[in-house]
Amino acid sequence: MRFLHHPDSVAHKPPTYLVRGEPKPVPEVPERALALVEQLQRRGGTIEQAPLCGTGPLVAVHTPEYIHFLETAHRRWSELPGASAAVIPNAHPFTSTTTYPTGIVGQAGYHIYDTAAPVVAGTWAAASASAAVAVHGATLVASGKAPAAYALCRPPGHHATRQAAGGFCYLNNAAIAAQAALPVLAARGLPGRVAILDVDLHHGNGTQEIFYERNDVLMVNVHADPSAFYPFFSGYAHERGAGAGLGYTINRPLPIGADEATFLTAVAASLADIARYAPSLLVLSLGFDTFIGDPMATFGVTTPGFSRLGAMIAASGVPTLVVQEGGYAVGDLTANLGSFLDGFEGVIPAVETV
Amino acid sequence: MRFLHHPDSVAHKPPTYLVRGEPKPVPEVPERALALVEQLQRRGGTIEQAPLCGTGPLVAVHTPEYIHFLETAHRRWSELPGASAAVIPNAHPFTSTTTYPTGIVGQAGYHIYDTAAPVVAGTWAAASASAAVAVHGATLVASGKAPAAYALCRPPGHHATRQAAGGFCYLNNAAIAAQAALPVLAARGLPGRVAILDVDLHHGNGTQEIFYERNDVLMVNVHADPSAFYPFFSGYAHERGAGAGLGYTINRPLPIGADEATFLTAVAASLADIARYAPSLLVLSLGFDTFIGDPMATFGVTTPGFSRLGAMIAASGVPTLVVQEGGYAVGDLTANLGSFLDGFEGVIPAVETV
Repeated sequence: MRFLHHPDSVAHKPPTYLVRGEPKPVPEVPERALALVEQLQRRGGTIEQAPLCGTGPLVAVHTPEYIHFLETAHRRWSELPGASAAVIPNAHPFTSTTTYPTGIVGQAGYHIYDTAAPVVAGTWAAASASAAVAVHGATLVASGKAPAAYALCRPPGHHATRQAAGGFCYLNNAAIAAQAALPVLAARGLPGRVAILDVDLHHGNGTQEIFYERNDVLMVNVHADPSAFYPFFSGYAHERGAGAGLGYTINRPLPIGADEATFLTAVAASLADIARYAPSLLVLSLGFDTFIGDPMATFGVTTPGFSRLGAMIAASGVPTLVVQEGGYAVGDLTANLGSFLDGFEGVIPAVETV
Repeated sequence: MRFLHHPDSVAHKPPTYLVRGEPKPVPEVPERALALVEQLQRRGGTIEQAPLCGTGPLVAVHTPEYIHFLETAHRRWSELPGASAAVIPNAHPFTSTTTYPTGIVGQAGYHIYDTAAPVVAGTWAAASASAAVAVHGATLVASGKAPAAYALCRPPGHHATRQAAGGFCYLNNAAIAAQAALPVLAARGLPGRVAILDVDLHHGNGTQEIFYERNDVLMVNVHADPSAFYPFFSGYAHERGAGAGLGYTINRPLPIGADEATFLTAVAASLADIARYAPSLLVLSLGFDTFIGDPMATFGVTTPGFSRLGAMIAASGVPTLVVQEGGYAVGDLTANLGSFLDGFEGVIPAVETV
């Protein structure tokens, strides 16, 4: 298992977001990355700094205008008289006949779909570093240089759609990684099939949107029922993909309050789906917000439960890139990642050779 | 000219909204209605209270689920632990494959597209009263009982889309009035053509959306260029309608800072469009935020300028329902409405007989 990170991940320090109309501190804090690094350090292996990857892998998934927005938004917003410190949208597109505005306030509403993705001075540096970590991991595993890698991505990515930020996410690290892996697999003559398994507490709506009409990326989600839970508008069992992608999106929403056994059973069913697909690479969107002690938790996964999850993933036998998503019990992240890796490495021993 | 109002219009007392990320008091205050009533009282005629109209005319324009949301949102929101006093959305739909959520937080993001349409305890009472005023006016004018009527609608309506509130607007009074007029015109054997002329400072994006694919309602807009101004995502000259409605939406965005002559020239061109359409009824969406002293003003219309506007509208010779939209210089509203009515009534004398 290779461990990958980038120090710029901590540059993003978001302020508040709205919860039921009231401003609350964003729980997706830089300390999350430090707590996860702490676990990697304890394991004694090398923690590799990923090289930055430029915008090429980003625009393979996101629109160029969205990338330009993320790069420039904070500077342009700061030039507005009376503007807040963070870019926060106040008006959103509402119809199918939307024209793209030239001004930053309109663009903010176009490219940020909720109040939980404020853009601050360090957002672009951190988000692009986070994506680069995922791309490096995808290249390592898809090329066969490593059977598995853990990408310490922060900020997370799975709520970022093709052209909009949301839910603490700016660049869709898992989607960017899956996309970047495809040509690497092709160059080795391997089947061009990547499976993404998203086990974060929240539905991976951005990842789903990006691959919804494709069959070269299978998207399987296990998450809390979105009927009255973020991200609200997708993640329902009836959403199964469209066009060429029909049947290649699978959603397993679980009731609010689902216990560990229910969660792991849904993961097992998802791994069976993935086995039938026979992917050349598995990208695991790993959230620790399913933890019973998470401030957002509605699920009952315990710290030892993450070992079972890790063991199940490793037992799939598919080369795996683990991409970090959410998890907000900062004081427990070190232990929860340790538990996951213990379970995972019980099957695939740590490998540090290239 | 008949004067119509409803006392419940003042029941809606919105708190703050976000301007460039910072909370500011909503300028669409109940005192606006009182300032407008003051002008009507000064003119000495009867100020008629419109009868409530039920939800029938509303669901002819808005979706039933949206109407149900507006009726119930504040009560349902108030039952959430820790919820703010006003319903304020924090997450919006972002893709074409949107599933309608059952919970109130998700529904708030589905049915409110910006932070400028908070739903409070009195919102439904005021918005439905405001719509009833417009419906009553439409019935009076379309039936031939009055050549013209002024509907004191508050809250305003032209930013409300088929299924979402935004920009201080909840029910689209002008659209509801135009729709309600059609069967009344038909019953008299008149051509089923209604023109809407929107001269508010802001583009009437909701009204445009509602009639975008229809040719029985001509929608003509004069407003500030939305490239970097609310509502940002529509109101561009290239938007001309679609399907059967192609050519029946006309937008005349004017530069930020446009003076009175520029504004009135655009109104004259719009009235020429309307004359060619030969409508049986004109609905005027009248905002006073084009006033040079308006807190939002980017236009230079003076108080005497509104007399010229009123005279131009009256000179069209089309039976006219005036629907009040925005205008936030509360201390000047009494005079500005007076100026408009003076100009209008110079051509069509006040009529108080049924």
